[in-house]
Amino acid sequence: MKITAARVIITCPGRNFVTLKIETDQGVYGIGDATLNGRELSVVAYLQEHVAPCLIGMDPRRIEDIWQYVYRGAYWRRGPVTMRAIAAVDMALWDIKAKMAGMPLYQLLGGRSRDGIMVYGHANGSDIAETVEAVGHYIDMGYKAIRAQTGVPGIKDAYGVGRGKLYYEPADASLPSVTGWDTRKALNYVPKLFEELRKTYGFDHHLLHDGHHRYTPQEAANLGKMLEPYQLFWLEDCTPAENQEAFRLVRQHTVTPLAVGEIFNTIWDAKDLIQNQLIDYIRATVVGAGGLTHLRRIADLASLYQVRTGCHGATDLSPVTMGCALHFDTWVPNFGIQEYMRHTEETDAVFPHDYWFEKGELFVGETPGHGVDIDEELAAKYPYKPAYLPVARLEDGTMWNW
Amino acid sequence: MKITAARVIITCPGRNFVTLKIETDQGVYGIGDATLNGRELSVVAYLQEHVAPCLIGMDPRRIEDIWQYVYRGAYWRRGPVTMRAIAAVDMALWDIKAKMAGMPLYQLLGGRSRDGIMVYGHANGSDIAETVEAVGHYIDMGYKAIRAQTGVPGIKDAYGVGRGKLYYEPADASLPSVTGWDTRKALNYVPKLFEELRKTYGFDHHLLHDGHHRYTPQEAANLGKMLEPYQLFWLEDCTPAENQEAFRLVRQHTVTPLAVGEIFNTIWDAKDLIQNQLIDYIRATVVGAGGLTHLRRIADLASLYQVRTGCHGATDLSPVTMGCALHFDTWVPNFGIQEYMRHTEETDAVFPHDYWFEKGELFVGETPGHGVDIDEELAAKYPYKPAYLPVARLEDGTMWNW
Amino acid sequence: MKITAARVIITCPGRNFVTLKIETDQGVYGIGDATLNGRELSVVAYLQEHVAPCLIGMDPRRIEDIWQYVYRGAYWRRGPVTMRAIAAVDMALWDIKAKMAGMPLYQLLGGRSRDGIMVYGHANGSDIAETVEAVGHYIDMGYKAIRAQTGVPGIKDAYGVGRGKLYYEPADASLPSVTGWDTRKALNYVPKLFEELRKTYGFDHHLLHDGHHRYTPQEAANLGKMLEPYQLFWLEDCTPAENQEAFRLVRQHTVTPLAVGEIFNTIWDAKDLIQNQLIDYIRATVVGAGGLTHLRRIADLASLYQVRTGCHGATDLSPVTMGCALHFDTWVPNFGIQEYMRHTEETDAVFPHDYWFEKGELFVGETPGHGVDIDEELAAKYPYKPAYLPVARLEDGTMWNW
Amino acid sequence: MKITAARVIITCPGRNFVTLKIETDQGVYGIGDATLNGRELSVVAYLQEHVAPCLIGMDPRRIEDIWQYVYRGAYWRRGPVTMRAIAAVDMALWDIKAKMAGMPLYQLLGGRSRDGIMVYGHANGSDIAETVEAVGHYIDMGYKAIRAQTGVPGIKDAYGVGRGKLYYEPADASLPSVTGWDTRKALNYVPKLFEELRKTYGFDHHLLHDGHHRYTPQEAANLGKMLEPYQLFWLEDCTPAENQEAFRLVRQHTVTPLAVGEIFNTIWDAKDLIQNQLIDYIRATVVGAGGLTHLRRIADLASLYQVRTGCHGATDLSPVTMGCALHFDTWVPNFGIQEYMRHTEETDAVFPHDYWFEKGELFVGETPGHGVDIDEELAAKYPYKPAYLPVARLEDGTMWNW
Repeated sequence: MKITAARVIITCPGRNFVTLKIETDQGVYGIGDATLNGRELSVVAYLQEHVAPCLIGMDPRRIEDIWQYVYRGAYWRRGPVTMRAIAAVDMALWDIKAKMAGMPLYQLLGGRSRDGIMVYGHANGSDIAETVEAVGHYIDMGYKAIRAQTGVPGIKDAYGVGRGKLYYEPADASLPSVTGWDTRKALNYVPKLFEELRKTYGFDHHLLHDGHHRYTPQEAANLGKMLEPYQLFWLEDCTPAENQEAFRLVRQHTVTPLAVGEIFNTIWDAKDLIQNQLIDYIRATVVGAGGLTHLRRIADLASLYQVRTGCHGATDLSPVTMGCALHFDTWVPNFGIQEYMRHTEETDAVFPHDYWFEKGELFVGETPGHGVDIDEELAAKYPYKPAYLPVARLEDGTMWNW
Repeated sequence: MKITAARVIITCPGRNFVTLKIETDQGVYGIGDATLNGRELSVVAYLQEHVAPCLIGMDPRRIEDIWQYVYRGAYWRRGPVTMRAIAAVDMALWDIKAKMAGMPLYQLLGGRSRDGIMVYGHANGSDIAETVEAVGHYIDMGYKAIRAQTGVPGIKDAYGVGRGKLYYEPADASLPSVTGWDTRKALNYVPKLFEELRKTYGFDHHLLHDGHHRYTPQEAANLGKMLEPYQLFWLEDCTPAENQEAFRLVRQHTVTPLAVGEIFNTIWDAKDLIQNQLIDYIRATVVGAGGLTHLRRIADLASLYQVRTGCHGATDLSPVTMGCALHFDTWVPNFGIQEYMRHTEETDAVFPHDYWFEKGELFVGETPGHGVDIDEELAAKYPYKPAYLPVARLEDGTMWNW
Repeated sequence: MKITAARVIITCPGRNFVTLKIETDQGVYGIGDATLNGRELSVVAYLQEHVAPCLIGMDPRRIEDIWQYVYRGAYWRRGPVTMRAIAAVDMALWDIKAKMAGMPLYQLLGGRSRDGIMVYGHANGSDIAETVEAVGHYIDMGYKAIRAQTGVPGIKDAYGVGRGKLYYEPADASLPSVTGWDTRKALNYVPKLFEELRKTYGFDHHLLHDGHHRYTPQEAANLGKMLEPYQLFWLEDCTPAENQEAFRLVRQHTVTPLAVGEIFNTIWDAKDLIQNQLIDYIRATVVGAGGLTHLRRIADLASLYQVRTGCHGATDLSPVTMGCALHFDTWVPNFGIQEYMRHTEETDAVFPHDYWFEKGELFVGETPGHGVDIDEELAAKYPYKPAYLPVARLEDGTMWNW
Repeated sequence: MKITAARVIITCPGRNFVTLKIETDQGVYGIGDATLNGRELSVVAYLQEHVAPCLIGMDPRRIEDIWQYVYRGAYWRRGPVTMRAIAAVDMALWDIKAKMAGMPLYQLLGGRSRDGIMVYGHANGSDIAETVEAVGHYIDMGYKAIRAQTGVPGIKDAYGVGRGKLYYEPADASLPSVTGWDTRKALNYVPKLFEELRKTYGFDHHLLHDGHHRYTPQEAANLGKMLEPYQLFWLEDCTPAENQEAFRLVRQHTVTPLAVGEIFNTIWDAKDLIQNQLIDYIRATVVGAGGLTHLRRIADLASLYQVRTGCHGATDLSPVTMGCALHFDTWVPNFGIQEYMRHTEETDAVFPHDYWFEKGELFVGETPGHGVDIDEELAAKYPYKPAYLPVARLEDGTMWNW
């Protein structure tokens, strides 16, 4: 069996998505997501100019061999661009194999371990009151877990500030918009949000908060300690994790659960965090960390330390990734939670898919493969539009982490 | 002062080179190297589509701020593609600042710490005899340090097999050529090469060997121990280093000096290797690891542990990188050695430069900036030609490290 | 280019300052600060008798080489006297190089990373009420960050007791004045100061406190924990740091941010504190720790652990150091805060400088070099006057840390 | 009882010595050594201008209190200059107390633990043959332990090259002489010296070698391993020790005993080396590390780890230090060996002393105090003459460790 084509499709139904379509000489094709939010065309070139030519003629069933071929063959290993290209190939090949087996992908991973997939939604507000109200809205929609982010008085459009009830797309501008940050103001304000939320809704719902890489280890430890009374489900990306030891100080001072990993692209970014029990949820994704083949290895290592998955699921991960992720979540024994940011109708139309939301959970259907396709014709109506994630500067102008 | 343009120039005088040219409103321009061997067009897109638009209008003198802007602003941090794009910007901006100061770049770094820059050449042979002869050839040319790589009977064109006396370009094929590997055969043969070399030329010349990621930690420890009598200058890339702890076992069993880092792209790839004294030479480069701004931080961390620099210098690093590297080597207090693979005449013509080779050392001139330019007209005569680095498979077909 | 003279100038406009002036054969000169508060003449002799003779005839552009020459050439490495001599040479040489480049010094370091430099002032009072009032005074002057030190009932002139509104000079007596100390009394009183300050001014201003080496690790952990509710910006010098592990116990028990380093003179004094994430701010200075060449290495090591700079800036650091420090603070990516104790008018007249204070921040101008000069004629009007920092004894007479 | 005077006496009988004389109102005086080779006048100023004024009127019997007063009262702690000033005061005060007790100093330390003090001499030669001969010369003189240093072909006057049979004074030039270094050449040659020495004189004498800070940790491990067959007494200063962890790698690879410490000036420089069993001999000295009061604390910590003393004893330590050292060696339970470089006759005349050499050992007499005095009249005949220790550069000009 041979791969006959590997085409990269760019579409922008409201936001950019890059999709790889691998066709075979058996009429079966598979698709994979390769979207790198704000750097899309770099992965397009990586795939089109450097990876696709090597795939032609290869046996699409040799998924592991092709994974190793592209990973080791790159010579220049790891990194967001390289691993998203590898992920797209991997998703497409698993899609093909599952279709040939006539099975939904979760069956090939090891079968169903749970019925529904608990997700969390995103309650954003410009202040505490607005955010509390948004959380209520998600509770009404049946969400069991809600991430709460509030604007902070004196900080210019900090991440997560409300943009409409359901849809939130940070990559919005033709040039990076500059947001502000001030830890002092945030530490004075964020704990009050959760105090208010627990007072309003009690302790029956999971509440999550995203530090978005903004705090130093000591500041994160301080925040984690102040949030403890409100028993968060997790505090996410509390401090940058290039230095995996940075989480030691946070871990030393608080039992607030810690989650990290959305910007990780291989197991090497998480190995010490996991092996030193410094985190409770690993958020690496199918598209970000080299596909199903590599993500299962991250999840398996995590399980040795009872660290659960909490896959990132913002809108820049296309429905192809969400499909794969849900098959993965359906199988993975140490599942924790799945982030679910709804795609727009236009996106859903370009990517017909076999998953759906019901009372706080996502469900995946029985369609062979990962159950997601791309309507190339419709996709072509939405040409690529450059968009950037914001950047953040401190009040004195210092570049900071958005 | 403002950046007015940031253009990416691709040329292929014998091999591909990607060069970024930043122009300013003061008539001064700077150039940087962005070549990622075998994945060139991915960096071209990263720069052209995603970074260059942000640079226009920025103050080119704010080198640190722009570094942090592109590093943190990428959101998806690190990786070979991202860091080569950042490196190209950084080199170009230091080129501009040094030109505006009217000084050779090494002066801005801290001034001259040494006269000449010791380099090593590449003696390759299909067998021991041929390699011994090749080493003699380099000795005659005045080289004080020579890397010796031999073909191994029974291993299909292992890395470094002779391709002409001076010029060696691994990225040669329109599709990755498949080489073989067998550790047992290599361990039986490689030590004999160095026994022969010491018998032939004695101990007055530095001899280097490149393991090229091929051995496991135990195999590398075994090889290191067998090579100890021949007092190598270093054993390079003895085992893959994503798991930095892998070098502990090698370090435990041999005092053969260890060098690693040509495929590292940030300080995070080397931090544990350096801080646990597991290596003696760090080989990260100006183009591979985020430019001068980041490489000096890697070298400074290394100096705390008496780890010296041994920058990778294969032909896929363009003369722009070699120029920057030599200014860096002229300043950096903990300099070890510089790899020097000669570029072809065509390449030298496309990139007029102010450095030269003399009796085993490279020297950098006093031209303001990093002293290397690009002849755009000539460059245009050499259109991009896809080329791949080889891959390696074990005898049973298993994908391995080339 | 050659150094033609290296003269040491001592002046005492209200307090002693030692300044090194390096002259060259190109008409450009540079100046550096070598003031060691209470031990000035030892550095004068070190420079005049032992270092200056070696500099004559050297190339002033070889800043790194001269740094290594004086550091390694001393044979007897490190220490406050040695490293202040090295710092003075280093500041003078960077002054010369930046002047020759026609650029303000921050440009050679890497360019501007921020607009203004946040500083903290010193609110001292003989008791809580007086200190609270002093803090208000600083708030009115636009300070965003204020260090608060109070006298403690029963402790004879503890450090920081008010001496006038703005000017504070601990080195005052012709022989060391003997102050008292009692941890029990301090622990009973200091937390109340911050309770009162938060009650009076809320949490919008940064509040700092200086333990001044007075507490044992356990006492510092106790104090840090009691101060936690008042969310200090930092607790400084909470315990002596010769044994860098001493901070582990403090770190274990409190998330109050920790700052240390004003009496450090090389990176070796801080390496374990930084690498074990035991501190949040490193306070080493340009004059105390071997000049810009060495301080940037300390700051870069700190940045790997998200430790920020918080440079000591008492009045015994001459305006030359303040100038260099502000160029450093303008560039350094991981800037935290700068201590700013105003110099007297006489001092400002002896040292014309290009920096100014505005609403809680210091700004540095565009004068080439570090922007500070010395009016030798005026300086000569203020002859050296011996002065000592105080010492401290416990109530039973035991020598303690002032 | 009061201190009435504290005078600093500089003399240069062949080399510079700085001596502190403390006089009391009881007619008893004590003297201490404050010589810092190549930086003498800095300690003179430290003592004369900053310490002496504080001593006048103090009770000379409060040795510990005065030690703490000068150590803590300096505020800027540690360092070669500060600790030599403290050492001079400490030696003089112990001299006074012992004289008042009518006892030789060793009695106040705890009494005699051994009869004679084993010393080692310095056999230097320009090549192996000359060094072997020099060793024989020391054997004939009854030495049980001999340090052997050979010149290395191709290295310009490496440290220790013969200058006459008995007298060796590295600080010789009015400006630092520049010596060379090349590890490769040394590693090829030094092991052969010890092979030859063992072949010539067998294993009955202790053989020592001084690496003089020249090797990196890996090079030192390599050298230590190659020297193992020749069962050295110790390998000294094998690598710079600011990073005390650097010795781990050496320790991992060889059982050759390791000695370090001549340039240490407080216990903090050795704490981790001792507590991690990384060394076998600590070489800190009475004059270098804060006097008898502090050296006994270093020796006591060392004894917990069965690390023995091996005090540095080059000629720049005046007979006053040698006197104190021998009293120290006579008492200290974990004595290892004492370095003994003979002073010239002129020096011995300026410093009448009560110790003598006999068959490889030094003996100290029963004179009350440390038994060494200074003939001020004779001393005045030898005015101070600036002299520098050499510096070392690698062959490419890089500053290295002399």
